[in-house]
Amino acid sequence: MQEESNTSIFPQGEKITNGYFTGDAFLRILQEKDKNNNFALGNVTFERGARTNWHTHPQGQVLIVTEGIGWYQEKRKPAQVIKKGDVINIPEGVEHWHGASADSRMIHIAITNYQDEENVTWLQPVTDAEYNEVDKK
Amino acid sequence: MQEESNTSIFPQGEKITNGYFTGDAFLRILQEKDKNNNFALGNVTFERGARTNWHTHPQGQVLIVTEGIGWYQEKRKPAQVIKKGDVINIPEGVEHWHGASADSRMIHIAITNYQDEENVTWLQPVTDAEYNEVDKK
Repeated sequence: MQEESNTSIFPQGEKITNGYFTGDAFLRILQEKDKNNNFALGNVTFERGARTNWHTHPQGQVLIVTEGIGWYQEKRKPAQVIKKGDVINIPEGVEHWHGASADSRMIHIAITNYQDEENVTWLQPVTDAEYNEVDKK
Repeated sequence: MQEESNTSIFPQGEKITNGYFTGDAFLRILQEKDKNNNFALGNVTFERGARTNWHTHPQGQVLIVTEGIGWYQEKRKPAQVIKKGDVINIPEGVEHWHGASADSRMIHIAITNYQDEENVTWLQPVTDAEYNEVDKK
């Protein structure tokens, strides 16, 4: 599973198996919350077609796309293409998902702020119908 | 000044002219402090030999090296090589500097936490003698 990654910034990390992702996604933890850093810092690799469930963050999240092309969509809004070099400042409490496009993997760094001890609320999967609607061939 | 940057994640940004850097360094601001994010997020490009002054952060800083090879040194400790893929969690109040090696530029993302409205205290330059001591030919 290390193909293409020789030029990536980080090793791919561990496959995400928490049940809140569709498809193959991998997490490398870069920094845990500590006394100075009120966020979790991680690198997420989405293989083609992979995406998060719908979810919210109580204190928001910043995504830094470092490779590839993918999607970011807030509920009841059109999906937007995200690509290498894009920075997305996700507001608190807004239901959304992100993931790779159908044709390209996508890698992003995520800075996920904590509110007390929580930094995410997971919701329902992004169905194939929802995904295919935004990533039409 | 855009040479080599076709494969970089971000445009190089603006040359840093605040007087607290030696050599050619460039900043692209990625995200300002706001109600959710208690940090400044920026991408810093150090050309060969460029480095920060000695400085401290009241609430620490996380560096994510995305390209090249450089140096990180805390006062009264040996300098350590930092390279693409390294993450450095800099403690609060520790005098230190970072920059490129003499042979390679270095690019890092910086997450600089705020304590109230302050996130850095600048000190004296890293002299050529100090720099050459760590980056001997």
